[in-house]
Amino acid sequence: MKVTGEMPIGKATRFGAAGTVKAFDPRRGVEIEPPFGVATADDVDDACQLALRAFESYRETSPAERGAFLVRAADNLLALGDVLYERAASETGLTVERIKGETARTAAQLKLFADVVRHGRWRNATIDSGDPTREPLPKAELRMQKVPVGPVAVFGASNFPILYSVAGGDTASALAAGCPVVVKAHGSHPGTSELVGKAIQAAVAQSGLHEGVFSLLIGAGNAVGEALVDHPAIHAVGFTGSEAGGMALVRRGAARPVPIPVFAEMTSVNPNFVLPHALEVRAPEFASRFVERMTAGAGQMCLKPGMIVAIEGPGFGALRDALAHALRGVPAQTMLSPGIYENFRRETERSRHGQSSVSIAQGQAPEARFDGQSEIFEMDATELLAEPALAGEMFGPAAVLVRCRDTQQMLAVAAGLQGQLTVALHIDSGDIELARLLLPVVERKTNRILANKFSNMVEIGYATVHGGPFPATSDSRFTSVGATAIERFLRPVCYENLPAELLPPALRDDNPLSLWRVRDGELEQR
Amino acid sequence: MKVTGEMPIGKATRFGAAGTVKAFDPRRGVEIEPPFGVATADDVDDACQLALRAFESYRETSPAERGAFLVRAADNLLALGDVLYERAASETGLTVERIKGETARTAAQLKLFADVVRHGRWRNATIDSGDPTREPLPKAELRMQKVPVGPVAVFGASNFPILYSVAGGDTASALAAGCPVVVKAHGSHPGTSELVGKAIQAAVAQSGLHEGVFSLLIGAGNAVGEALVDHPAIHAVGFTGSEAGGMALVRRGAARPVPIPVFAEMTSVNPNFVLPHALEVRAPEFASRFVERMTAGAGQMCLKPGMIVAIEGPGFGALRDALAHALRGVPAQTMLSPGIYENFRRETERSRHGQSSVSIAQGQAPEARFDGQSEIFEMDATELLAEPALAGEMFGPAAVLVRCRDTQQMLAVAAGLQGQLTVALHIDSGDIELARLLLPVVERKTNRILANKFSNMVEIGYATVHGGPFPATSDSRFTSVGATAIERFLRPVCYENLPAELLPPALRDDNPLSLWRVRDGELEQR
Repeated sequence: MKVTGEMPIGKATRFGAAGTVKAFDPRRGVEIEPPFGVATADDVDDACQLALRAFESYRETSPAERGAFLVRAADNLLALGDVLYERAASETGLTVERIKGETARTAAQLKLFADVVRHGRWRNATIDSGDPTREPLPKAELRMQKVPVGPVAVFGASNFPILYSVAGGDTASALAAGCPVVVKAHGSHPGTSELVGKAIQAAVAQSGLHEGVFSLLIGAGNAVGEALVDHPAIHAVGFTGSEAGGMALVRRGAARPVPIPVFAEMTSVNPNFVLPHALEVRAPEFASRFVERMTAGAGQMCLKPGMIVAIEGPGFGALRDALAHALRGVPAQTMLSPGIYENFRRETERSRHGQSSVSIAQGQAPEARFDGQSEIFEMDATELLAEPALAGEMFGPAAVLVRCRDTQQMLAVAAGLQGQLTVALHIDSGDIELARLLLPVVERKTNRILANKFSNMVEIGYATVHGGPFPATSDSRFTSVGATAIERFLRPVCYENLPAELLPPALRDDNPLSLWRVRDGELEQR
Repeated sequence: MKVTGEMPIGKATRFGAAGTVKAFDPRRGVEIEPPFGVATADDVDDACQLALRAFESYRETSPAERGAFLVRAADNLLALGDVLYERAASETGLTVERIKGETARTAAQLKLFADVVRHGRWRNATIDSGDPTREPLPKAELRMQKVPVGPVAVFGASNFPILYSVAGGDTASALAAGCPVVVKAHGSHPGTSELVGKAIQAAVAQSGLHEGVFSLLIGAGNAVGEALVDHPAIHAVGFTGSEAGGMALVRRGAARPVPIPVFAEMTSVNPNFVLPHALEVRAPEFASRFVERMTAGAGQMCLKPGMIVAIEGPGFGALRDALAHALRGVPAQTMLSPGIYENFRRETERSRHGQSSVSIAQGQAPEARFDGQSEIFEMDATELLAEPALAGEMFGPAAVLVRCRDTQQMLAVAAGLQGQLTVALHIDSGDIELARLLLPVVERKTNRILANKFSNMVEIGYATVHGGPFPATSDSRFTSVGATAIERFLRPVCYENLPAELLPPALRDDNPLSLWRVRDGELEQR
């Protein structure tokens, strides 16, 4: 397969007529061929109308059909092989190794959703028995299942060109729910998006599904994305990216004549609390692992550990020294795009020259135009408590060490955090009591808590949660990665007194799908 | 217990200092004593701050403690007895019988949530085993549970002074989730609200819970409600009422510095599709039951059947005649408030004098100032399809009969509906094929489908769904009544690598709560 600059829309491919854009290779500092045609308003409308028409049949597909489709999509993705790995690496400056790992995880997530669909627990099938003899009124029999909300729009992220993009958690969970998907490709990796989009398009055809189940749009600026969120056929949106971009879509979705939910995963500094005993006994090991994780992928990860919170005392000086030592050996790395590089340079410069923090070390100097130089700052907790905005995310290989006076101040820093995707506690056996105090505080600040580990990467399974209170995401009640991400795209429907021949399979008395169901409040599988 | 005009805020009662309001008896047309003190900005802040402080301990209560509290609240509610029934009847014009029924159902719902809490399925406890030997990277062990979002604000409805008000589904499900609740009393039944609020307040004290678990605020105009939704301590909102009121809160919640979800149940006409065979064989019986249900409680129910859709042909004339006949015998009934009466009068007058519909019958003439006169209109489906706004809700004892040319037009009417709380299909054995065509269409328009039944009332259990696509509610993914209403107020938290002694009870290896849990994708209880 080769990159042509076309968009898969339904079963066709189109070269958009609203101008052209090219991808950019940040490592070589040059544009990459070929040009991509930008979607017109008609292209957006066609993709959305096709999705709406596809919804009629796709929502009725059996678990086996839908599961087989997701497995085909995963297999087609893996089959892209080197073409994909090399294109994605050149569009992002990430290594081929990293892209390979992402692709494998993306395929595994698609297959996980095939299992989720086939297992059917997402249906939440529930039956309440009736009782015609109840006084004063007979009790009605109720049957409930979840159904898909309708076509879903997905906005891919810049920093994970495969895993949080065209075939990522948003797309996989929406397709698993029974919702057709229209993806807006991220502008920084259109070729990667085209390749992955065509792999899904092929899976749609191979599975005999309605062509509108999947389409991909290439945009330039905001017009395509805005038209997509505004389109009446779209019933929900998944987004991964910046807080500004995410909130623009959230507000747009809410302002429609028929408002729709926009799930946006936006920003997080992923604080690491190093408790006193852990600090005393293993500051150097912590520091070296921390630097490794904060600089992985040039720090351009939603889950990058971006903050350390520790108390002055035994080990604090050793921590600072070990961080500085480890960081000085880190080579500068190519950043995803000129824009991201420029933001990162500006943000670190501001921290370096600000009143509130001092730079304690930098990594190796840049060698190429868009190389990001790693940096760690130190800040007194008093400054942070007075000005919480200082704890904002620096997207790239930078972090801040927050120095607390005592445990009370550490607890105050935790209580003052804004919503996070993750919080990690680094503890030793002597830290359990303090951890017990911290745990309920951080449980209100994040949807993922780790002990003695770093937050990137995330294991994708049934218990995975990638989400958090605002501004980590726009709705803390959901995850965008892992099996339960499907819940974002489902709504419950109750059926009362329907003749047996009209009941959906999930709710028939003979339970043809062998689902676990709640009957009169108790789970059963019969 | 007697009505004093005070608000229960925490363990105290306060007479609000921001002016006074009185309740109004629409049957007698007079104000009712005593005056109620309106909450000041400080009262709102105190109630919210108390709720936030209470959250620290209330979120950690055991299932047994929280369940016992909900049962006490139910028992205290029932113990109010005649004082409550008479006050509520005088504040609403509803009958004492109706209030008694509502109170019994409200208490039953509180007890249902006690069972829900104790059963613990709401925790969604999920464990993914780790695998240290996995290549290329070891697999992390993940444990996930749901936790409460934080204090919840609840806005009671005018039309169900008990069941959708201070102790209704919003309050019960939020308390069950572990969220303290601050209720804004509906202005039309402040005395009823005070009595119920004090019953819950007493249950908080009897259960040894933090006083901030429940507070009630009396407002006048929008100031108290707006301050409540704006308060940083509030993490989610439940509302039942008009579309204008609901959307004002939804937009306000979204515009906060930290946006919060506002679940608003707003408007529905609850269409009844009478299919041709059913029409032919039992139009008269249908008509008489329809009139009974559309006029129950003076038609002031979210679930009032407000539309009939039928095809011209055998039985249609009989349906029209039977509707007219049944309606003419219906006495006018006191409406909830002068404002609601006035709106209803204006809306029926507009339909009566409009170009699109004709009045086919009226009920008996009003005898008192705020009596609503029942009315049924007829409209051609062509008019409705051309102007969907004609299908808006008339809050009160009015309905419209939509006359279709053929089955295609009936399907078009179904496809053109806006979101509904319920849709009912009235079918006979010969109608199954048409019902099969209609079912997937209406399944996209409503979260509750009935066959050969009317939508009011709703059975409250595990499979209950009271919700629907916009504008029926602001978020079709949730219900506001029944066991799963709790999901609106929960968010998932994942724990990774936590020492055993720090794990929450729901996720410990020994499963002390005996929960059903998902382990590696499969349900188990051990």
